[in-house]
Amino acid sequence: MPEDRQVSVIAGGVGAAKFLRGLLKFYPNELVTAVVNVADDFHLHGLSISPDLDTVAYTISNQVNPETGWGRTGESWRVMTELEKLGGHTWFSLGDLDLALHLYRTQRLAEGATLSDVTREICAAWGITANLLPATDAKIRTQLKVLDKDWVDFQDYFVAQQHSVPITDVRFAGIESASPGPGVIPSLEEADIIIIAPSNPIVSVNPVLEISGIREVLQRRKETVVAISPIVGGEALKGPASRMLEELGYEKSAVGVADLYKNIASILVIDETDAALSSRIESQGIQPLVTDTIMSDPERAAHLAKVTLESLFLSKEGPL
Amino acid sequence: MPEDRQVSVIAGGVGAAKFLRGLLKFYPNELVTAVVNVADDFHLHGLSISPDLDTVAYTISNQVNPETGWGRTGESWRVMTELEKLGGHTWFSLGDLDLALHLYRTQRLAEGATLSDVTREICAAWGITANLLPATDAKIRTQLKVLDKDWVDFQDYFVAQQHSVPITDVRFAGIESASPGPGVIPSLEEADIIIIAPSNPIVSVNPVLEISGIREVLQRRKETVVAISPIVGGEALKGPASRMLEELGYEKSAVGVADLYKNIASILVIDETDAALSSRIESQGIQPLVTDTIMSDPERAAHLAKVTLESLFLSKEGPL
Repeated sequence: MPEDRQVSVIAGGVGAAKFLRGLLKFYPNELVTAVVNVADDFHLHGLSISPDLDTVAYTISNQVNPETGWGRTGESWRVMTELEKLGGHTWFSLGDLDLALHLYRTQRLAEGATLSDVTREICAAWGITANLLPATDAKIRTQLKVLDKDWVDFQDYFVAQQHSVPITDVRFAGIESASPGPGVIPSLEEADIIIIAPSNPIVSVNPVLEISGIREVLQRRKETVVAISPIVGGEALKGPASRMLEELGYEKSAVGVADLYKNIASILVIDETDAALSSRIESQGIQPLVTDTIMSDPERAAHLAKVTLESLFLSKEGPL
Repeated sequence: MPEDRQVSVIAGGVGAAKFLRGLLKFYPNELVTAVVNVADDFHLHGLSISPDLDTVAYTISNQVNPETGWGRTGESWRVMTELEKLGGHTWFSLGDLDLALHLYRTQRLAEGATLSDVTREICAAWGITANLLPATDAKIRTQLKVLDKDWVDFQDYFVAQQHSVPITDVRFAGIESASPGPGVIPSLEEADIIIIAPSNPIVSVNPVLEISGIREVLQRRKETVVAISPIVGGEALKGPASRMLEELGYEKSAVGVADLYKNIASILVIDETDAALSSRIESQGIQPLVTDTIMSDPERAAHLAKVTLESLFLSKEGPL
């Protein structure tokens, strides 16, 4: 395993966080950059909340709640319990420890710091030496067109309505004028491997790719890009990715993922469960790689990360 | 004691809160209106914080920390402890329970509610039947000219610098365009007694009086107005009131308070300690009333409230 190579990972929330934790278990952390989705970011109670950045930071600093995959271990809920008594919004649960992070971020943004600055500060405070980069410092917001209704904000769909309503379209408000965050394009240009983490292609990966210039780098460097399918056996392990693919006209399987990534990735890592889809994926023009993609513990996640790295390095250099 | 009369109290923070709790122990709560200072309100961590309104609400709903006189009893500090690890601002301590209130207020204001609306909602949630009114729904901010320096915000002076620096001037930014909150003028017009609570005259009472129309009502209804001196034996029981009086050219005693209130109040309640100042207060054109003003427990506060009510009602009607 060549361990002097730059690795850049396009990341959403829980799946990406688990993958990154696996990767960082064995790979030099300072060689790893995560370009993280911020289109789920939102404001509540006056606070700036960045769910994907937080989930990744909590997970790779080993502070994440292992039962939920998000939020903090040892979390408490005094503020939310009290807020509930006041009749406040409690549909998005914010633990006491988690709130501290949102207070910090909100105050720093009010002081003029960028989201990139704040993320760097949080990483420093928690000893994270991997590079965690918001995909953009601009405000972009995923909105979903809900069947027979208006556009709704992502968190309203995802958390408040528990992604129970069919969607007909997705947009990322503000993305036309958003520039990639500092370091994002250089990281993708200089990476020896670009990994698209097993995140929701529609609402986690796409709002990164759609930021000016990012998809173009991946298209140009397609031979360097390996994607991991978040769909296993036709279902997402977590969240609505599978239903979303179907509702937006894609096959709800690793083949649908291949369809989405065929112009920007040369390899698609799929689960053993989906081995039979290999030829259909290959006919999309993307090379399937079958392995165990279920990251039920950090060791299995590390194994998936190793196989992912080796796939590309092997194909370039032969067996180690 | 006639208990069918409307009582209006101009209130700052801790001293006013204790006085109000004493009053509400025996007086029909729905006949009492508190017009509360909001010029100490500020933003921190993205949250809208209203220290005086909160102190009054916590105190009269018997949720206040009895040791400090502010904040909540049974408070915990998980969020602040975690925020400190991140290097965030912790100079203004926000307990977990307290934070819930700030989250609630901030969210409601973002949704378009006024501070008066939010205050009413909080009172309803906590079973407060006295009328708690922000002096204004507009944003006004106390600023202090610090010796040889620029203007600083109140919380920076009061909490961050622990009011240790001399001041040369006070202003209330935004007050020129501020209107009294809904119900404020009617309450003062209709009150059978208007009480100026034992609060800091410079930074708690003045930013209420300076709001358009309020001082005028008190001037016109001066015979209905009783003030309570927050200065006892030349010192404030809490906070910098005494130093502020002196720094701004007033005598730092109940006489200085009389000087400030002589055109808007007919009676000044002073502590037994200051009985010897009676003739000097009288020569300011305001009638002194000597009693125990130290509100070390709710019973003593209730006694002070009774004496205050009786002073005016007695002088109008003779002994009960």
